[in-house]
Amino acid sequence: MSDQQALVGVIMGSQSDWAIMTHACETLTALGIAHETRIVSAHRTPDRLVSYATSARERGLKVVIAGAGGAAHLPGMTAAMTPLPVFGVPIESKSLKGLDSLLSIVQMPGGVPVGTVAIGKAGAINAALLAAAVIALEDKAVSEALDAWRARQTAAVAEQPSDGTA
Amino acid sequence: MSDQQALVGVIMGSQSDWAIMTHACETLTALGIAHETRIVSAHRTPDRLVSYATSARERGLKVVIAGAGGAAHLPGMTAAMTPLPVFGVPIESKSLKGLDSLLSIVQMPGGVPVGTVAIGKAGAINAALLAAAVIALEDKAVSEALDAWRARQTAAVAEQPSDGTA
Amino acid sequence: MSDQQALVGVIMGSQSDWAIMTHACETLTALGIAHETRIVSAHRTPDRLVSYATSARERGLKVVIAGAGGAAHLPGMTAAMTPLPVFGVPIESKSLKGLDSLLSIVQMPGGVPVGTVAIGKAGAINAALLAAAVIALEDKAVSEALDAWRARQTAAVAEQPSDGTA
Amino acid sequence: MSDQQALVGVIMGSQSDWAIMTHACETLTALGIAHETRIVSAHRTPDRLVSYATSARERGLKVVIAGAGGAAHLPGMTAAMTPLPVFGVPIESKSLKGLDSLLSIVQMPGGVPVGTVAIGKAGAINAALLAAAVIALEDKAVSEALDAWRARQTAAVAEQPSDGTA
Amino acid sequence: MSDQQALVGVIMGSQSDWAIMTHACETLTALGIAHETRIVSAHRTPDRLVSYATSARERGLKVVIAGAGGAAHLPGMTAAMTPLPVFGVPIESKSLKGLDSLLSIVQMPGGVPVGTVAIGKAGAINAALLAAAVIALEDKAVSEALDAWRARQTAAVAEQPSDGTA
Amino acid sequence: MSDQQALVGVIMGSQSDWAIMTHACETLTALGIAHETRIVSAHRTPDRLVSYATSARERGLKVVIAGAGGAAHLPGMTAAMTPLPVFGVPIESKSLKGLDSLLSIVQMPGGVPVGTVAIGKAGAINAALLAAAVIALEDKAVSEALDAWRARQTAAVAEQPSDGTA
Amino acid sequence: MSDQQALVGVIMGSQSDWAIMTHACETLTALGIAHETRIVSAHRTPDRLVSYATSARERGLKVVIAGAGGAAHLPGMTAAMTPLPVFGVPIESKSLKGLDSLLSIVQMPGGVPVGTVAIGKAGAINAALLAAAVIALEDKAVSEALDAWRARQTAAVAEQPSDGTA
Amino acid sequence: MSDQQALVGVIMGSQSDWAIMTHACETLTALGIAHETRIVSAHRTPDRLVSYATSARERGLKVVIAGAGGAAHLPGMTAAMTPLPVFGVPIESKSLKGLDSLLSIVQMPGGVPVGTVAIGKAGAINAALLAAAVIALEDKAVSEALDAWRARQTAAVAEQPSDGTA
Repeated sequence: MSDQQALVGVIMGSQSDWAIMTHACETLTALGIAHETRIVSAHRTPDRLVSYATSARERGLKVVIAGAGGAAHLPGMTAAMTPLPVFGVPIESKSLKGLDSLLSIVQMPGGVPVGTVAIGKAGAINAALLAAAVIALEDKAVSEALDAWRARQTAAVAEQPSDGTA
Repeated sequence: MSDQQALVGVIMGSQSDWAIMTHACETLTALGIAHETRIVSAHRTPDRLVSYATSARERGLKVVIAGAGGAAHLPGMTAAMTPLPVFGVPIESKSLKGLDSLLSIVQMPGGVPVGTVAIGKAGAINAALLAAAVIALEDKAVSEALDAWRARQTAAVAEQPSDGTA
Repeated sequence: MSDQQALVGVIMGSQSDWAIMTHACETLTALGIAHETRIVSAHRTPDRLVSYATSARERGLKVVIAGAGGAAHLPGMTAAMTPLPVFGVPIESKSLKGLDSLLSIVQMPGGVPVGTVAIGKAGAINAALLAAAVIALEDKAVSEALDAWRARQTAAVAEQPSDGTA
Repeated sequence: MSDQQALVGVIMGSQSDWAIMTHACETLTALGIAHETRIVSAHRTPDRLVSYATSARERGLKVVIAGAGGAAHLPGMTAAMTPLPVFGVPIESKSLKGLDSLLSIVQMPGGVPVGTVAIGKAGAINAALLAAAVIALEDKAVSEALDAWRARQTAAVAEQPSDGTA
Repeated sequence: MSDQQALVGVIMGSQSDWAIMTHACETLTALGIAHETRIVSAHRTPDRLVSYATSARERGLKVVIAGAGGAAHLPGMTAAMTPLPVFGVPIESKSLKGLDSLLSIVQMPGGVPVGTVAIGKAGAINAALLAAAVIALEDKAVSEALDAWRARQTAAVAEQPSDGTA
Repeated sequence: MSDQQALVGVIMGSQSDWAIMTHACETLTALGIAHETRIVSAHRTPDRLVSYATSARERGLKVVIAGAGGAAHLPGMTAAMTPLPVFGVPIESKSLKGLDSLLSIVQMPGGVPVGTVAIGKAGAINAALLAAAVIALEDKAVSEALDAWRARQTAAVAEQPSDGTA
Repeated sequence: MSDQQALVGVIMGSQSDWAIMTHACETLTALGIAHETRIVSAHRTPDRLVSYATSARERGLKVVIAGAGGAAHLPGMTAAMTPLPVFGVPIESKSLKGLDSLLSIVQMPGGVPVGTVAIGKAGAINAALLAAAVIALEDKAVSEALDAWRARQTAAVAEQPSDGTA
Repeated sequence: MSDQQALVGVIMGSQSDWAIMTHACETLTALGIAHETRIVSAHRTPDRLVSYATSARERGLKVVIAGAGGAAHLPGMTAAMTPLPVFGVPIESKSLKGLDSLLSIVQMPGGVPVGTVAIGKAGAINAALLAAAVIALEDKAVSEALDAWRARQTAAVAEQPSDGTA
């Protein structure tokens, strides 16, 4: 989707977060939403964080999705420097299993919001769906794609549990 | 703001959540965003939940903010029945101090997203700011109001701590 | 047991819960209690949830057992829409190990009860035993089966630990 | 209700639990369900525990509700000694706020179930409602009382939050 | 040690606890302390619990070590029925990793004490060492064995970490 | 009891722990067990810790009870320097409510045991009762006092909860 | 101390943190260490954060102490932008009591360290003492002041608990 | 680095901590900082702890890094006996995943500070970097090495996530 204006920026604190954050990108792709990916480490590349966050709106992004683990400062610091909606994905950490990531992202002080989703893969998918819901408000194609995606999801739920795949 | 089309629905699980959720409404008002409030108990008024959530988009809402405490099912169930972006505010519960509310709201399965904010008052304010950030994407007046709000917030941070108000 | 009136409905939020919830069914079968199984996702199939829960009593069910994980809303939402006793089984989640599931199920507000059992397999077995205890109150065969089951369980506890199976 | 056969036994580990457990009794009374109350300390009166639990069924009880806090062993030990359904109410403890009570009650091993409800007052009310749901299966008066109670509860939820009572 | 009066009773809630509790027995053996082992399930064999606990002192035991997991009621219920010192070993549980076991054992109400040790193997060893410390107060052989054991333990700590065994 | 050989040393990390630890002393006094009290801060008075712990046995003590809060190192460090049984009382801390105190005391590595009791007042009482149970093994007067204390405790449990004191 | 080169920068996320952070300043003053205070909100004043952190070394500071609560990003973001040692003080938050603050500060990824101290007042004092320990390495006056402070602290611990101040 | 005066002492509670603490040593080596390693068990070798901690300053150390797990008393007890800055590394424990280690280290009372870093390998690296930041204040070579290390770290962050290493 490189020749379209990216509407969603998917950023993450390190390469190791990509295994999870790729699910956000796959979901955006499935919904036909142009997006970009970038590694932006709040701690190791603070200059990149500043330039990415402060330029996000003027570069045409509508939503930023930020994934990070442990003392996860990327979503909140991004939200501090852009007026765009920011959705944070807590990455599961080794010892505390993402509880640290979750609290570091969700417990933002009044004034600078981050919309936080579930820890890990479910959260990465949902951050993309939430971005789609935002974009769908003014984009009919995305709105229809999202409605269709949700309808397919509903239809895919079997009536009965199956031993075969348990 | 009763004569304007409400863009944000602010719902809560019970009257007791209002002391917190009023901060969402005050913030929306400060930003000039028309909104409506409603008590919708997922558990005590499930029919109201269904009718509110399934009609939200067609009634012209852009965003739903849902506050709930304890086994807080309102935000997630609303998100299950509307394609609109839903932001969830965990209300502090008596014994577990909102940890139960937070986990009940944020740990949604992949497929049905809720953008979750901080427990309590900070979260209520931030849900409103997040709704504003969404609406600002296509609404110049709200965008300017939000930018101004953020600038005032930054300007209001004193350089030095003051003993007088400590 | 397809030709008997099901007395217990065993529902779960997704196919992936079946590996645990099958233990509820096996226990019910061992006690001679007719039951049905169904996947009912509160989030992905809210209509199915409404129709299942609101019709449960009139279809002849006595008890509903509902298993779900993460932001586990199925047991509570079912309890909101049926006067039958509902027992909730928290499924172990990936990151938070079922603590989120447990709190999402057990911390119901006053007015809509869910009888919650242990996280995982032990809980699935116990939900079935609890359903049996309810049915046994008016069903002599089940009462005797349950008494016998409990007696066998007691008799099966060895006096001494054995290295062989440690 | 002293001249009726008690159908529900409401027991608690100490006098200090009564401030919470009284809500179970009030709810049972509101539903017209005869019940008895007793202080039964698993730790301080183990003989009383044995005699209460082992005689519960033959004395005509249908359900036991047991409230306890901290290392809360009363519900589980009662369930070990009676085939009746046992519902456990975790009482909020001083330091750990009932998290210890909750885990001590809900994490029963497979084989001996306790249906656990929320920590504190909400749980006490819900244990009574759950007992009512069980009894209502075969008792038309209780069934109608419970349906009416639930309908009144739904009707009592205001549409709009009110500043006056916030 | 079958021909000596057992001084320590090592009991556990189920066969599955033996892999941990065997470390208590090995430690007692290393210190020359006669002991007995028994599976006593508070929930599945409550009669055995009563008879074991109430007869422990008269049978000549000095200390009871009780291991249990999840809603771990064995140590506390034993302490309720014997004046002997009881030491509780929290067994690691599957989902909550022994936090439930720990809180269920340690948070006993004032009046009935359980001396609780660490979760798992370290706790099993330490319960035995604590029992030895108690017995050593009046038994010179055990006192000397314990002093020697502690001295050997101290001597066995290398000055430098070694890559070979890391 | 200043003219009797102290059998139990009750130590605590700071003056602020005394409000809790006094309950240990009152319980020991009620059982007729001579004891001494001392403030021993592992962190602020490490020399006092070393001299107290290393001399405890030779000075005639049988048991040490140590109360501490937060990063509570006193019980474990005492146990590292005396072969006597050490019982640890976690003092409730301001922010984490004693969960830090509890884990710092109970999670001792294999080799150096601390018998840990409940957080706060209940734990202080129980540490004294546990010390009494140890001393009672060889002291008939204490054994009888403890049996009587337990019998009175059992007798003091009312059959019925009373509204007057709720 | 306005006419001395500040060696320690004491910063905090908001005015409301001052009630705690003042204890850091008082401790530094007691040790004769020149310091400066500043409110630097990572979220509300990100520019101030960048300029404060990137200029800290060249302005002559040796150590930065940063206090913040909730999703506490100030210490870690400061550490990302200065090579000076940074010590973080978790401020107790309303709902989660500083557990969120603690994890947000301490769980930094490898590469950008924050030396974290206890939640609240104890941590504020200790951050100052840690800064003093650093400065004392090359500053004889501070070294002697710190030694004297520690000696006075040790001397101030009473031997016996006193009822009067309990 | 055996012929240089060690500036940093890296100590750990047991051989099993070495797999983590080796990362501290590797980081110090990469920065050219002479250091020594030692196993010092607070519980199993208290005499060694006393002699190591009380002699640390006079032996020329500038910083002590102490790693420990579970009821982790080594960092705090070291800090009690040396005026040097002490940094604590919580080692991940088996059952509680280092939450016990973290709280045991970080929640020190006011008066005796330990600068605590993240659980596990990230913390070990960061303790070394924090020691380097302290030493760099007066050591130009270390300061330059640290600046270079940080610059390399920043440069090593790729712009784009890569599927190849995900």
